Amino acid sequence: MSGNTFGTLFAVTNFGESHGPAIGCVIDGCPPGMALSEADIQPDLDRRRPGTSRHVTQRQEPDQVEILSGVYEGRTTGTPIALLIRNTDQRSKDYGDILQTFRPGHADYTYLQKYGLRDPRGGGRSSARLTAPMVAAGAVAKKWLAQAYGTVLRGCMQQVGEVSIPFESWDHVAHNPFFAPVADTAHLEAYMDSLRKAGDSCGARIRVTAQNVPVGLGEPLFDKLDADIAWAMMGINAVKGVEIGAGFASVAQRGSTHGDSLSPQGFRSNNAGGVLGGISTGQDIEVSIAIKPTSSILTPRESVDMQGRSTEVVTKGRHDPCVGIRATPIAEAMLALVLIEHVLRHRAQNADVRAPMAAIAGSAAAAG
Amino acid sequence: MSGNTFGTLFAVTNFGESHGPAIGCVIDGCPPGMALSEADIQPDLDRRRPGTSRHVTQRQEPDQVEILSGVYEGRTTGTPIALLIRNTDQRSKDYGDILQTFRPGHADYTYLQKYGLRDPRGGGRSSARLTAPMVAAGAVAKKWLAQAYGTVLRGCMQQVGEVSIPFESWDHVAHNPFFAPVADTAHLEAYMDSLRKAGDSCGARIRVTAQNVPVGLGEPLFDKLDADIAWAMMGINAVKGVEIGAGFASVAQRGSTHGDSLSPQGFRSNNAGGVLGGISTGQDIEVSIAIKPTSSILTPRESVDMQGRSTEVVTKGRHDPCVGIRATPIAEAMLALVLIEHVLRHRAQNADVRAPMAAIAGSAAAAG
Amino acid sequence: MSGNTFGTLFAVTNFGESHGPAIGCVIDGCPPGMALSEADIQPDLDRRRPGTSRHVTQRQEPDQVEILSGVYEGRTTGTPIALLIRNTDQRSKDYGDILQTFRPGHADYTYLQKYGLRDPRGGGRSSARLTAPMVAAGAVAKKWLAQAYGTVLRGCMQQVGEVSIPFESWDHVAHNPFFAPVADTAHLEAYMDSLRKAGDSCGARIRVTAQNVPVGLGEPLFDKLDADIAWAMMGINAVKGVEIGAGFASVAQRGSTHGDSLSPQGFRSNNAGGVLGGISTGQDIEVSIAIKPTSSILTPRESVDMQGRSTEVVTKGRHDPCVGIRATPIAEAMLALVLIEHVLRHRAQNADVRAPMAAIAGSAAAAG
Amino acid sequence: MSGNTFGTLFAVTNFGESHGPAIGCVIDGCPPGMALSEADIQPDLDRRRPGTSRHVTQRQEPDQVEILSGVYEGRTTGTPIALLIRNTDQRSKDYGDILQTFRPGHADYTYLQKYGLRDPRGGGRSSARLTAPMVAAGAVAKKWLAQAYGTVLRGCMQQVGEVSIPFESWDHVAHNPFFAPVADTAHLEAYMDSLRKAGDSCGARIRVTAQNVPVGLGEPLFDKLDADIAWAMMGINAVKGVEIGAGFASVAQRGSTHGDSLSPQGFRSNNAGGVLGGISTGQDIEVSIAIKPTSSILTPRESVDMQGRSTEVVTKGRHDPCVGIRATPIAEAMLALVLIEHVLRHRAQNADVRAPMAAIAGSAAAAG
Repeated sequence: MSGNTFGTLFAVTNFGESHGPAIGCVIDGCPPGMALSEADIQPDLDRRRPGTSRHVTQRQEPDQVEILSGVYEGRTTGTPIALLIRNTDQRSKDYGDILQTFRPGHADYTYLQKYGLRDPRGGGRSSARLTAPMVAAGAVAKKWLAQAYGTVLRGCMQQVGEVSIPFESWDHVAHNPFFAPVADTAHLEAYMDSLRKAGDSCGARIRVTAQNVPVGLGEPLFDKLDADIAWAMMGINAVKGVEIGAGFASVAQRGSTHGDSLSPQGFRSNNAGGVLGGISTGQDIEVSIAIKPTSSILTPRESVDMQGRSTEVVTKGRHDPCVGIRATPIAEAMLALVLIEHVLRHRAQNADVRAPMAAIAGSAAAAG
Repeated sequence: MSGNTFGTLFAVTNFGESHGPAIGCVIDGCPPGMALSEADIQPDLDRRRPGTSRHVTQRQEPDQVEILSGVYEGRTTGTPIALLIRNTDQRSKDYGDILQTFRPGHADYTYLQKYGLRDPRGGGRSSARLTAPMVAAGAVAKKWLAQAYGTVLRGCMQQVGEVSIPFESWDHVAHNPFFAPVADTAHLEAYMDSLRKAGDSCGARIRVTAQNVPVGLGEPLFDKLDADIAWAMMGINAVKGVEIGAGFASVAQRGSTHGDSLSPQGFRSNNAGGVLGGISTGQDIEVSIAIKPTSSILTPRESVDMQGRSTEVVTKGRHDPCVGIRATPIAEAMLALVLIEHVLRHRAQNADVRAPMAAIAGSAAAAG
Repeated sequence: MSGNTFGTLFAVTNFGESHGPAIGCVIDGCPPGMALSEADIQPDLDRRRPGTSRHVTQRQEPDQVEILSGVYEGRTTGTPIALLIRNTDQRSKDYGDILQTFRPGHADYTYLQKYGLRDPRGGGRSSARLTAPMVAAGAVAKKWLAQAYGTVLRGCMQQVGEVSIPFESWDHVAHNPFFAPVADTAHLEAYMDSLRKAGDSCGARIRVTAQNVPVGLGEPLFDKLDADIAWAMMGINAVKGVEIGAGFASVAQRGSTHGDSLSPQGFRSNNAGGVLGGISTGQDIEVSIAIKPTSSILTPRESVDMQGRSTEVVTKGRHDPCVGIRATPIAEAMLALVLIEHVLRHRAQNADVRAPMAAIAGSAAAAG
Repeated sequence: MSGNTFGTLFAVTNFGESHGPAIGCVIDGCPPGMALSEADIQPDLDRRRPGTSRHVTQRQEPDQVEILSGVYEGRTTGTPIALLIRNTDQRSKDYGDILQTFRPGHADYTYLQKYGLRDPRGGGRSSARLTAPMVAAGAVAKKWLAQAYGTVLRGCMQQVGEVSIPFESWDHVAHNPFFAPVADTAHLEAYMDSLRKAGDSCGARIRVTAQNVPVGLGEPLFDKLDADIAWAMMGINAVKGVEIGAGFASVAQRGSTHGDSLSPQGFRSNNAGGVLGGISTGQDIEVSIAIKPTSSILTPRESVDMQGRSTEVVTKGRHDPCVGIRATPIAEAMLALVLIEHVLRHRAQNADVRAPMAAIAGSAAAAG
């Protein structure tokens, strides 16, 4: 109810602040019997980790995860899996003057209004650092989905600031600091360098997909699969928009174009983005998100202090010039968490889960 | 868990099918002591009702609401408010052949895969008719929010198909069948007529706003106010995209532009759309949604039958050529339901709710 | 959150007041495909119904149930099942003076304090009449459990006031107005008659059991199967105590006696009442509950009025001299609702449910 | 949903196993601004701790708690409070042979059936050791309730095995190892010594009370205050029965006796145990629980092994001869957690909480 638990059947309770002693989460509801160790989780944390290129924050956080419970002799026991990440790099002096002013675009003002107090150290609980435990939990979900259905979760950068990035191949994504699906990212490097020199920041657009998703996931009215995906994505810091399938482009489409026709070999297109009536079709889930430009910039901004007097704010410290760059593994994790939740819900209601079907023919016959 | 309840503290459980005996909802958690009668609810139902112009479905459903419980001597008692709407116009013969095929863009295929069976009468549970109980529940929420904080919820059409609609004034919205904020809608009428003649349909883009929203609503991590809004909007039939504030436009913005600066008189702009760090700022909440074109069209479409054989589908019956037209009161209702939920959550945690502040100066001093 | 929904995966939302237009419930989460009609539900409602003997209230409520949704062509569709019971016998004049005083043992005082107002008609929402929708929902759960696992739910009277009732046979329960498992109930009739003449009331002790319960149901820490049973039973009006298995007698037992030993043929005893560590053993679930004497009695009682002045209260009207008499079908329904909830939870987590085992040998080998 | 979270608005998620690296919990929903440090929590943990007398297990667990998050400069921030207790004394060799057999009265069999595997080290997740994080969370709840309403939570031993313990004074409770409210406990010491020599164990009956509880807490139908208390108490390991107020004694009471009459000075008695219609009356909450005898005893017991063959079990290791002895601080903590949850729910619905009233007169006038 206080917004720190994600999911119900695969429930992830997140705790910690950017500059407190530790961050982490408790995963409750992971099915028993799955092989699990820190080595399954660390790689995704490393993909999200700061300090890996000059285009992201230079903070050094090893983000080493420790499994505290829920695993016995290398297998999940069905009981809560607690994951702990100790904070190591806490230069809170960088943030000393924040407490007296409200940084534009930041949650300073709203936190103070909500709670009557705030933890200024690195943004406290509003820091994007709190996505690390979600990436860790998402890694557990990804492993389970991969083993159960061969589900593959992937994300890539679609746009950085004004620079649109065409899709060439998933193979490129791991080989550049932008998660860009292109071979040559020299122009992106140059763009980011100029932005950093200008003391400014830019937004990003990310695409996330899931392949081999069981058909029939999602609830028809409120917990639609796409509604839960939208909720999960908007839960990532700085996200301002979410699209499923054709998204906002569907406004100008005709019904005769948008509605994906069916053939004995399967759907002919995927404007739906893998969801019809809130329920998965077995096609790829296709999601796109908009991430606003980083609010912490060197450019001076007009603001007010705690007494409501005019002042100017410059945010020093080590910040990402484009928070969207590190958002790709986060969005993948969030999508994985939504999917595993809905698989478990489906099992509760139907006792079996239907694998995604290559050909509709067979599935219809089987269901009929 | 089965996706038919919206909210937790102000929980609305929706029931019914398009062509069953009745639809309705149970509102659990409405604070006691508010004056309430059917007359508070019926006007919003009438705004959503079909058959009001030639541009929407010609089905005749009076959608007369009956309060079954939770009100004593004209006041809410704090116990569940059950609302009942009997279905009257159930021409299920129109839908006879649907059971044997899957209509492109519809939930036929996914329902069959999820449940192993489906109710073909008017789409059963996947029908947009199920938004009527939400509009009814939303009217209760709206009344409470208006009395408590003077909150005003409004929506209007921003785009129909390719036709963008500039914002002139809220005053026009009630005086045309499109909820368009413009004086002259002749071009929209002509556009819709041509579409109907072509046996096709189009999408729509809707804007929804809330004025006078208390500051401090929303949870910082997962139940962010904007995440819950995104979830609610994606829960409306046919919605494929959601934006808060600057939305997808924020991708190409610079941080120096996007971050709304603060002055002693208040925020200088509202790129945030009224939400920072998941928590309301007291500015207007600004939401925009994309609605896909109606899937039920007269144009023949390729599909398969229950045995997986190729077939062609033409959807007769009485359908909206642009489902987005009637979505405005629905989106308002959904936004109202999200806001009242978060007001009650805030009261649980903080015992007081802060009114939206004209000047930040005062609020900062008060909070500090 | 406002206490009107029972369960999460098989969620029953209850609405209505004793003397309002209607009472009912919405069942969300019933698995699809089960044959269901009003005829499956009415018999249990008739068992609970008032006016069936001179030992219960003489109110005449036919309690005719109507299925409003969730069933298509005689089968559940997996969508919400709304059940409606219109109130017919609303002699609210009987309750006219209640509004000015607080009846001892009643919820008058606490309702006023909680809500700031109260509905005095027949106790409003605090009336035991609200158990009728639970009995209806329980009938749906019972049918599903019976079909899936052969689960049998039964209850009987163990004690009426000071009169203890030995267990002779389940066969007798349906043939006397007390749900007593004995052939001869003449002494109970006499006891109740004398009580009624004295204008007083008495308590009761009820036993409820479930046979053929799958093994492995229940969560180890908080949602223990026995904890959820205790919660459900205490949720029945007037219940003041709950025991599982040996219950309070276990205080004076030794560990060497209490712990049920295991043999290749199964457990040797059932002090556990079918639950170990919060999880079902596959043995019979054994529950016992204490129900306080009816608070509405003809004997004058000391009380205060709304202004806090001394007064005397006599409750006229048509009341059960022992509310426990009609509690047996209610307790069965509540137990059924707890069990189906846990079956669905187990399916979510484990994808299969283990049938109760005749011999532990086989089960251990199978599980191992 | 997997039974590891207690509460919704004040939600405590528990993790860990008896012999894993650590146990702990995350408290989500604690109101901001309360002074809090480890020193507020440790005393209650020390009261529950093993090894404090010869009558409880001789395991040495310092149970040192560390606050990982949710507190900034000594005050709660309104964000999750993570509490960590490292396990130090993990002699898992003691439990080596348990994996091959099922101990009578233990959860070995049900865990295996539920999960398909089990963690045998000290009972894993079914160990009473998992009550330590609840005692820690309860200490936070107690502090908040005490500051807000002066609520006092207390518990004492009522019966050990066959030995009933009269109530003399709360003052004695802290001065003997049994939490007994009597000055002289020599006979209890002798009783326990003889039991230990016999290699056997006994049950216990505990009383828990809360003074200065706000009136109006609890929901009328399912989340009755007493129902939630029953759920919480049955969630404590080994509890087999729960009573509120007169409890099972109310069966043989008359209505004219049981119903607590009201006077201008307040209620004349407290058979209700502080709850009427599921809602607190402002009187003391009175709860009594039955705890079964310890299942781990030296006396040999008949059982079966994993292959279903007859075998004999003797449980060595360091076990409490009466688990009930250490249950008093646990039951207090559970009651505190139920109360704070309902205070927060009440605030959500009513925005104000009514203090317990000395005289009904004033309260009635105020409410009316």
